[in-house]
Amino acid sequence: MSQSVCGTSRIVGFRFSLYPMSDQFVDVIKGALGETNTSKVWLKTDDISTCIRGKAVHVFDVAKAVYLHAAKTGLHVVLNGSFSIGCPGDSDGDSYMSVDDECMNEAALSHIKIEAPTQFALYPMNDSRYMDLIAEAIEIAKEKETISGGIHYASRLDGDAHEVFSTLEQSFTATQEKVSHVTMTVNIAANSPSRKKV
Amino acid sequence: MSQSVCGTSRIVGFRFSLYPMSDQFVDVIKGALGETNTSKVWLKTDDISTCIRGKAVHVFDVAKAVYLHAAKTGLHVVLNGSFSIGCPGDSDGDSYMSVDDECMNEAALSHIKIEAPTQFALYPMNDSRYMDLIAEAIEIAKEKETISGGIHYASRLDGDAHEVFSTLEQSFTATQEKVSHVTMTVNIAANSPSRKKV
Repeated sequence: MSQSVCGTSRIVGFRFSLYPMSDQFVDVIKGALGETNTSKVWLKTDDISTCIRGKAVHVFDVAKAVYLHAAKTGLHVVLNGSFSIGCPGDSDGDSYMSVDDECMNEAALSHIKIEAPTQFALYPMNDSRYMDLIAEAIEIAKEKETISGGIHYASRLDGDAHEVFSTLEQSFTATQEKVSHVTMTVNIAANSPSRKKV
Repeated sequence: MSQSVCGTSRIVGFRFSLYPMSDQFVDVIKGALGETNTSKVWLKTDDISTCIRGKAVHVFDVAKAVYLHAAKTGLHVVLNGSFSIGCPGDSDGDSYMSVDDECMNEAALSHIKIEAPTQFALYPMNDSRYMDLIAEAIEIAKEKETISGGIHYASRLDGDAHEVFSTLEQSFTATQEKVSHVTMTVNIAANSPSRKKV
């Protein structure tokens, strides 16, 4: 990911929910959010989801950190949400676009290795080339060797969480260079007991 | 929802995950899917999500049934997924487009009353009017009095599950009459302890 991309003034958002399949779900959610350094993103949580906004580099850094802090508990957890850029709207969080590009969570988490089976879908809005743009994003996943198949309405990634998140970030960032308004849904699992059967 | 809409040959899909925030998550997921009559939709489950395909009327009927069967346990559960129509692709499930329009789950579930706080987003693809089309769908939610606000990247619905699902179905169906390829993300909660604080 080039600095030139992350350094633009285009604010990225990620509205996500963290779902721990556990009676301890409140502690896991609060723990993961609490352990994550969110100082470089705008953040607001409601009773359904959390929204973060800021520079792409920090939105993806925080997303991965929330996932890893929850996944390292060993419980079956899922991070599910939508990244978005270029949606006409208001200016909450614009002040976070002036921070530097140093990631606040990467150093503490780079040693954690967790398989991150993922389904994602890319929606380049208002552009007749959108199917081609999706195909180009899939090429990025192929180059990174995280792609593991197409399914109805989504594509599948498998591999270490760091590689999977890097694929998602590159796919999203490359697409938004070509079209103004892009959203990307992600469904990122960890520690699923179903994995043994697949 | 008019029969004429549901009776077209345009196949609708819903890729969803059911997340019970409970140690008993496997039993709740299998129970909800098992209690739902899925005889009129194509269905495939993998380790991350389940995909159903068929006529709109049955896809929404099954979606609501899965949610209600899980929610009636009293546990905090979430149904999260994406509806889609008009995506260029293959033909799995086309045979289900010839079934009649009688809903298989409605009668057994119409008496269940559960609050269904929801965040949803509509993505009409490849159409420059897409922001207007989203606004028109919000008007449907206003008329049904389920809308409870706009948030970053989504709109919020509140109310009884039957009213919320009806709003989602009407919004989706009305939009796909105007544009060929439409997706709609939904994040539908039940029994969240956070509701007490909001």
